[in-house]
Amino acid sequence: MSYEFYYWPMIQGRGEVVRLALEEAGTDYVDVAREPGEGDDNRAAILKILQDTTNEHPPFAPPFLVDTDNNNLMIAQAANILLYLAPRIGMISDSEADQIFAHQIQLTVTDLLMEVHDTHHAVASALYYEDQKEESKKRSENFIELRIPKHLAYFETILANNPSKSGWLIGDSLTYPDLSIFQMVEGLSYAFPKAFDKVSGTYQHVMALRDAVAARPNTAAYLASDRRIEFNTMGVFRYYPELDS
Amino acid sequence: MSYEFYYWPMIQGRGEVVRLALEEAGTDYVDVAREPGEGDDNRAAILKILQDTTNEHPPFAPPFLVDTDNNNLMIAQAANILLYLAPRIGMISDSEADQIFAHQIQLTVTDLLMEVHDTHHAVASALYYEDQKEESKKRSENFIELRIPKHLAYFETILANNPSKSGWLIGDSLTYPDLSIFQMVEGLSYAFPKAFDKVSGTYQHVMALRDAVAARPNTAAYLASDRRIEFNTMGVFRYYPELDS
Repeated sequence: MSYEFYYWPMIQGRGEVVRLALEEAGTDYVDVAREPGEGDDNRAAILKILQDTTNEHPPFAPPFLVDTDNNNLMIAQAANILLYLAPRIGMISDSEADQIFAHQIQLTVTDLLMEVHDTHHAVASALYYEDQKEESKKRSENFIELRIPKHLAYFETILANNPSKSGWLIGDSLTYPDLSIFQMVEGLSYAFPKAFDKVSGTYQHVMALRDAVAARPNTAAYLASDRRIEFNTMGVFRYYPELDS
Repeated sequence: MSYEFYYWPMIQGRGEVVRLALEEAGTDYVDVAREPGEGDDNRAAILKILQDTTNEHPPFAPPFLVDTDNNNLMIAQAANILLYLAPRIGMISDSEADQIFAHQIQLTVTDLLMEVHDTHHAVASALYYEDQKEESKKRSENFIELRIPKHLAYFETILANNPSKSGWLIGDSLTYPDLSIFQMVEGLSYAFPKAFDKVSGTYQHVMALRDAVAARPNTAAYLASDRRIEFNTMGVFRYYPELDS
C-alpha cells in the first residue's frame, strides 16, 4: 500500500476532500480508522499518533496521511495533504501556476469549512450545540445571507473565467479542487436546504460542476458505496432546521 | 522589483506573516497599498484587483503577492504565498519534508488566526464588535481556557522534539513558521495580556523562540520601523479588556 489515510471514521468532516481525491483517482489507500480495530473501528490508531509525545512532525489534528513509499512521511492538514498527493495521483498537472492556483482555491475551501463548522458552534467546539443554539442561530443567519453567496460567487467567477470553458476550475480537465467544490455544494444543500435552494440557481457553473463530478464513474461508485459516510449531525455540515432560514 | 505585496495598509492582519518573512529575508518588495495613492495610501490598488471580473486567477481576499519576475504570477492566501516565496528567499530549505512540515505548521497558524478573529466577531465579520459583544465574551472565555493552551502546547512540542535542539521549529536555523509563531505570541499577549501572562511561563521554548526572533537584526529593524503597523482594534488581534479574563 502506498498511502495510509487517517481521519475520524464516523464523519466526512475535514477529511472528505482527501477521500474524494483518492477515490476519483482510483488510488490504492487504506482508510486506517475505518479498518477493524479494538472497537467497531480503528480510531485508536489516530489517538495513538495524537498522543505520541516524541513525534518530530506531530499533527495538530486529523486528517493526516502517511506515504509508506516515501520513508513513512506523515502530512497533516487536508489542504497540505492534497498539495502533496495531487501531482502524484494525477489530480493536478505539473504546472506550478496550476498547482498554486489549485491550492489557493483549496485554502479558501478550508476557510469556508471552518465557517460552516462555526454556524453550529458559534461559541466553542468544546461545547454541545444545544448549549450555543441561540448564538449559532445568529451566526447561521449571517452566514446564509452573506457568506454562502460570497463563496459561491467566487467559485462561479473562476469557472466562468476559465479560458478553456471546460466547466472545470482549472484548464480543460478535472482537478482536485473541483471535487472540493462538489463537496461544498453537497454539504451546503444538506445543511441549509431551504436557504441553498433559494440561491443555487444563480450559480449555474457551480451547479453544473456538481453534476459533472457526481457523474464521474469513480466518484459515482464511491458515493454509492459504504465508503462514503452519510452526512450526519456530528460532522462539519449538520442539518438543524432551526438554523436554515 | 521582484515582488509586489498587497494587503490592507492599516492592519497587520492575515498579511503580517508574509511581511515578516519578506523583512527577515531582506527581500526587495513593494508593499503596494502602503505606497502613496489616491488618498493617504493606495488601497485602491487592492480594490481594483478584487473588482476585476475578468481575472482568471482571482483572489478571494487579500493578502496577495505578484511575482513580477515570473509572468506577474498572482498568489493569494497567506500560507500559499509563503509556500511559494520561502524557498525563493531563503526562508526554508530545499528539502520536501521540511517544506511540507513548515506549511503544515503555517496552516495551523492560519486556523488559529481565524479563531482569534472570531473571539471578537463571534457572530459575523460583517457586524460591529459592539453588536456581538456578549457572544464574543463567551467565545473568548473558551478560547482563553482551551484554545490558547492547546495551540501553544502544540508549538512547544514541535520545538522540544526538534532533534537538533536548535530552538527553531525545523532543523538548525530559522524558517518562516518561526516568524509566524513569534507573531502569534506578540498578538496573543497584546490581545489577552492577563490571560496570556498566566500561561506563557508554561511554554518556555515558545517564549524563547519569540525572543530569538525579536533579536534577529533584520526583524528587529523592521519592528522598530514605521513599516511595522502597530496592533490596533481593526486587525485580527484586538485588545478589548472585557474579553481578557
